Amino acid sequence: MSVKIIDLKANVLDDNNVLAQNTRERLKKEKTFLLNLMSAPGSGKTTTLTQLIKALKGEYKIGVMEADIDSDVDAVRITEAGAAAVQLHTGGMCHLDADMTAQGLDSIVSENFDIVILENVGNLVCPAEFDTGAVKNAMILSVPEGDDKPLKYPLMFQTADVVVINKTDVAPYFDFDMEKAKKNIESRHPGIPVIPLCAKTGDGVDKLADWLKTEAEAFFVD
Amino acid sequence: MSVKIIDLKANVLDDNNVLAQNTRERLKKEKTFLLNLMSAPGSGKTTTLTQLIKALKGEYKIGVMEADIDSDVDAVRITEAGAAAVQLHTGGMCHLDADMTAQGLDSIVSENFDIVILENVGNLVCPAEFDTGAVKNAMILSVPEGDDKPLKYPLMFQTADVVVINKTDVAPYFDFDMEKAKKNIESRHPGIPVIPLCAKTGDGVDKLADWLKTEAEAFFVD
Repeated sequence: MSVKIIDLKANVLDDNNVLAQNTRERLKKEKTFLLNLMSAPGSGKTTTLTQLIKALKGEYKIGVMEADIDSDVDAVRITEAGAAAVQLHTGGMCHLDADMTAQGLDSIVSENFDIVILENVGNLVCPAEFDTGAVKNAMILSVPEGDDKPLKYPLMFQTADVVVINKTDVAPYFDFDMEKAKKNIESRHPGIPVIPLCAKTGDGVDKLADWLKTEAEAFFVD
Repeated sequence: MSVKIIDLKANVLDDNNVLAQNTRERLKKEKTFLLNLMSAPGSGKTTTLTQLIKALKGEYKIGVMEADIDSDVDAVRITEAGAAAVQLHTGGMCHLDADMTAQGLDSIVSENFDIVILENVGNLVCPAEFDTGAVKNAMILSVPEGDDKPLKYPLMFQTADVVVINKTDVAPYFDFDMEKAKKNIESRHPGIPVIPLCAKTGDGVDKLADWLKTEAEAFFVD
């Protein structure tokens, strides 16, 4: 049996690039590095953040903006990890755009953070389409999701500046081929750094912390 | 530290309810039961479908519409499982709406399927906002995603007519509390049936097949 393929119509997405560019200029003046963290639901964004905060809070003043449609469970976890967190409710929206992100930044500007991390809505599609104004974009793919995700969600992997592969501790229980995953990521975004880690145990988080530190320092001196 | 909550503006979503209602009337005449299957990326929709096809293909003529932004890996897996599959490419869209679904149905109407299953784009947000015209909606939550997802993605759990909890085989390796998950689901959608299963091994799939059979038969005689 052969597979029939039908291409459906797509709507044109709003362009919020100008506002995002303004945000980056403002961040430059304020000397604040904004990282946009994206992933599917349940990939471990919040756990990864709590480990990153632990690794870097001695060197930087870190704030987190937690975007969710509802609830504040993640913001509570971040504050328990010792960082300041603000919860952004998107009112049903599947992503953050530059305007929402700027509203979030306005609400914490008085804190003078060195690094602000935006935990985007759990979604592999929409967040990749809207430039938030972040300096860099990170995404997490977790082992249980499968090594074929770069084939299905191309834009997310193209938009990211680094891909974290999380939940490496459970790899023996899933049909996840690390080499195939890396090959699929490379096919979507040649040369992108890929960092396997286990946020639950902290194993490998130092590599992500190093990446973030290098990017932040480059931004501060630039 | 207390958590600050900011409500952001939301855009009004397009209403495609009329077209969806037309689709349901057409399905009635064609005696075709359309199930809309939704979940986050990597929750096991395709594996669950291959098991469902195995359980029901002796009784019903089953077709599958695979919606993806890119690739045809899922449609290939479905045809290998012995059912007819059509791949719908959404052109970057994060969900299917009633128009796209009708286009898909048009392309397979000559096959006279008893049951058509629409595998929606992997996404816990947007697909819940657009009525596809399906007779019933099913969603999958997988164990690795965590038991808190009903708190974060309320509309998906409200829209579903049944919730499948997949990947029960790996429950010992995750901090997933089945009772808490059921309680969270119940808080979003009182009375909704919840079916734990393992699509990989087939364990529990009979219960989902029974649910689908009951719903389809009720639709055919109604």
